[in-house]
Amino acid sequence: MSKPTPISGFLEWLPAQRYTEQLVLDIIREVFELHGFEPINTRAVEPVERLTGKGGDADKEIYAVSRLAADEADKAEPGLGLHFDLTVPFSRYVIENAGKLTFPFRRYQIQPVWRGERPQAGRYREFVQADIDIVDVGELPFHYEVELPLVIADVFKRLPIGEFRIQVNNRKIPEGFYRGLGIDDIVGTLRIVDKLDKIGPAKVRELLVAEGVEDAAADKILALAAISTPDTSFVEQVRALGVEHPTLEEGLEQLRVVVETAAEHAPGLLVAELKIARGLDYYTGTVYETQLVGEEGYGSICSGGRYDSLASDGKRTYPGVGLSIGVSRLLAKLIGDGGLRTSRPTPTAVLVAVNDETSRAESMRIAAALRERGIPTLVSPKAAKFGKQIQFADRRGIPYVWFPGAGETGDQIKDIRSGEQFDADATSWVLPAADEQVRLEVAEASPAS
Amino acid sequence: MSKPTPISGFLEWLPAQRYTEQLVLDIIREVFELHGFEPINTRAVEPVERLTGKGGDADKEIYAVSRLAADEADKAEPGLGLHFDLTVPFSRYVIENAGKLTFPFRRYQIQPVWRGERPQAGRYREFVQADIDIVDVGELPFHYEVELPLVIADVFKRLPIGEFRIQVNNRKIPEGFYRGLGIDDIVGTLRIVDKLDKIGPAKVRELLVAEGVEDAAADKILALAAISTPDTSFVEQVRALGVEHPTLEEGLEQLRVVVETAAEHAPGLLVAELKIARGLDYYTGTVYETQLVGEEGYGSICSGGRYDSLASDGKRTYPGVGLSIGVSRLLAKLIGDGGLRTSRPTPTAVLVAVNDETSRAESMRIAAALRERGIPTLVSPKAAKFGKQIQFADRRGIPYVWFPGAGETGDQIKDIRSGEQFDADATSWVLPAADEQVRLEVAEASPAS
Repeated sequence: MSKPTPISGFLEWLPAQRYTEQLVLDIIREVFELHGFEPINTRAVEPVERLTGKGGDADKEIYAVSRLAADEADKAEPGLGLHFDLTVPFSRYVIENAGKLTFPFRRYQIQPVWRGERPQAGRYREFVQADIDIVDVGELPFHYEVELPLVIADVFKRLPIGEFRIQVNNRKIPEGFYRGLGIDDIVGTLRIVDKLDKIGPAKVRELLVAEGVEDAAADKILALAAISTPDTSFVEQVRALGVEHPTLEEGLEQLRVVVETAAEHAPGLLVAELKIARGLDYYTGTVYETQLVGEEGYGSICSGGRYDSLASDGKRTYPGVGLSIGVSRLLAKLIGDGGLRTSRPTPTAVLVAVNDETSRAESMRIAAALRERGIPTLVSPKAAKFGKQIQFADRRGIPYVWFPGAGETGDQIKDIRSGEQFDADATSWVLPAADEQVRLEVAEASPAS
Repeated sequence: MSKPTPISGFLEWLPAQRYTEQLVLDIIREVFELHGFEPINTRAVEPVERLTGKGGDADKEIYAVSRLAADEADKAEPGLGLHFDLTVPFSRYVIENAGKLTFPFRRYQIQPVWRGERPQAGRYREFVQADIDIVDVGELPFHYEVELPLVIADVFKRLPIGEFRIQVNNRKIPEGFYRGLGIDDIVGTLRIVDKLDKIGPAKVRELLVAEGVEDAAADKILALAAISTPDTSFVEQVRALGVEHPTLEEGLEQLRVVVETAAEHAPGLLVAELKIARGLDYYTGTVYETQLVGEEGYGSICSGGRYDSLASDGKRTYPGVGLSIGVSRLLAKLIGDGGLRTSRPTPTAVLVAVNDETSRAESMRIAAALRERGIPTLVSPKAAKFGKQIQFADRRGIPYVWFPGAGETGDQIKDIRSGEQFDADATSWVLPAADEQVRLEVAEASPAS
């Protein structure tokens, strides 16, 4: 086999890093379940026509899937592609299983997605997302838009990711504001304003004016987008701009409730950020983005919003609200640059030494007794000198080595970090509290390799 | 959106079933970690040439992956395909990362795999596997072949899957036996004997004779394959056939140690089954298959064996021993027909009722207090009549409904299964032990739907 090389865009972790990812996913899942979400997984593939139906140029991002040994019989089947997000498969799943689900349906879904990006583009082609959505039939109460960012705040509070901010806006605010200014092309205007971070306010103003927006109106649009408050004071700041429209009022009231509720349940974690628009056309109410404080340039690590009719089977529509955590993107940053790691690099807590190969059975019995009580245990691969066996544990980050029959009356165990060695019985010894649960932590000095 | 229909070969679970699958995967992972295995995940794709390099007609089973919007730049990239097992990606991963791994390397890997089966074949095209392997550089001690089935026995003992048997053989036994009979084409003979279950001994005998095997030798080959003992008595039974060869002796001694050790650590769960050959050519020592007792016709749910050189980078070879649990196959049987389910169908334990929409904030506070102490909690979607809110919980299998301010001095909680209602405080109430941990169980009467 020739020496393999990585494929651009497909991230793979070493075991200790994968272990870190797994503990992160465990926490995400735990919080989702604490908040009453139920798990689903969908197949990796969808019919291509369902994947391309969503947006004009979505086909550029799709990986098509076909049998290598395709024959005549394959032609009868629809073309398949790998899903590029978890929203398209979820909306299909809801319609396909509507009769068997109970609504409002709250689901979480943690899976890889694939994007057929151009080679050498340096972008991810495979990455893990963790999504929550709440969908209902016909109507969805507004209070879910208040609830959802609190779930995400709860996730990120439990992860050692440093400071973060959930930025919130409501699509009704710019829509009503633009209408109050006499502008009809809401989506077009939103698209221009969405470029603010990339091209700056002067260029955005130019583009607006080029589209026929009057100078005074363009200034107000920019003034609206500049509003950012950690509390409900944005309401007065918007009103001070002197634009009136019922949709604007509705949006302001909804955003006020979101921010006010968050101030109680997740103080300091939410900001009203009136420039947030989210590119996708289907959002109709609250929209969310999440930034790591000090890493704003890295982009949003968790985004979503309220949609009125993402899924529809012709007779009924399914409005919803959802948020998606970009787990791989987040971890590429935190593990790669940030030193995020586990408190030990392996699940294994104890290595049972082997005195000589004829007594391996005895070491296996000790390991079985420890595992019986939930202690991850490994038996030494070789009856080498004890120094070698300790080195074996040390290289793997296994904190304890067990020596059968080393004590005067029985076995001994050594904490190889402190060097301390003491008598222990495999049927009763327990891991010290600090080693019992493997935790996430951030390396102090240099990033974890 | 038109009504979607399932795609043949791609299994999707409803939320309660997915929850069952998840708890099964949790147990598998827990046991793997207890036995000192470290986690890895590999990307879903491999270069097609790596996938097809393994077996002559493997290409029939491969799903090719290509950018839907492929252009000139794509031609510079190798063709990609979805992995059809976890062994090919693992061996590639070992060679790619050899310098960063510590050997012997013990890894577990739980991921979906894909097979480009013909449409309408009624076979799985996407399914989850849970693999463990131990690989070393150059040489791998035999004792790992003894250890590995004990890990699998430990997994299945903790799952409510009913009785199971791990069937074990050693490739050196038939190889040495055939050589002792003067037969040189070992792989060809193994392939014929491997058809025993499908075509029966008479047809196998015919095929052997057609290949030039003498009548007496063919009888002995069949007699060897008929040996099946739950203890080490197979050794005497083989010797009684009067064939001698050093490779045979080595195989018998190794299998004796495997069976003897299993008798202590996993009594009654392993049998020496001398017809087991495993189709794949690369096994060189112990081989394993696992059957559900009473469902032998369903085939093996966990298979593997010892290989001398699955991976090689030209300079070094990496011998190993591995086992793979066919999780989706197993669950299709157990969830589909066997009534395997979770002790409640949802992670959620408590529904907090909402007295009226103006007091939703109070219900959210109660939910937050319960979640703070690890109790999965949902706030009622509507301030409907209490009967409706109880019905909402009942439909989802949520066992408790919390009523804010329903008691004389505070809140009350109702166990909707017993109807019992009592005073409770959100800052101190704990789930009764029976409801604290969601467990796997088997429905008594009819299978879970």
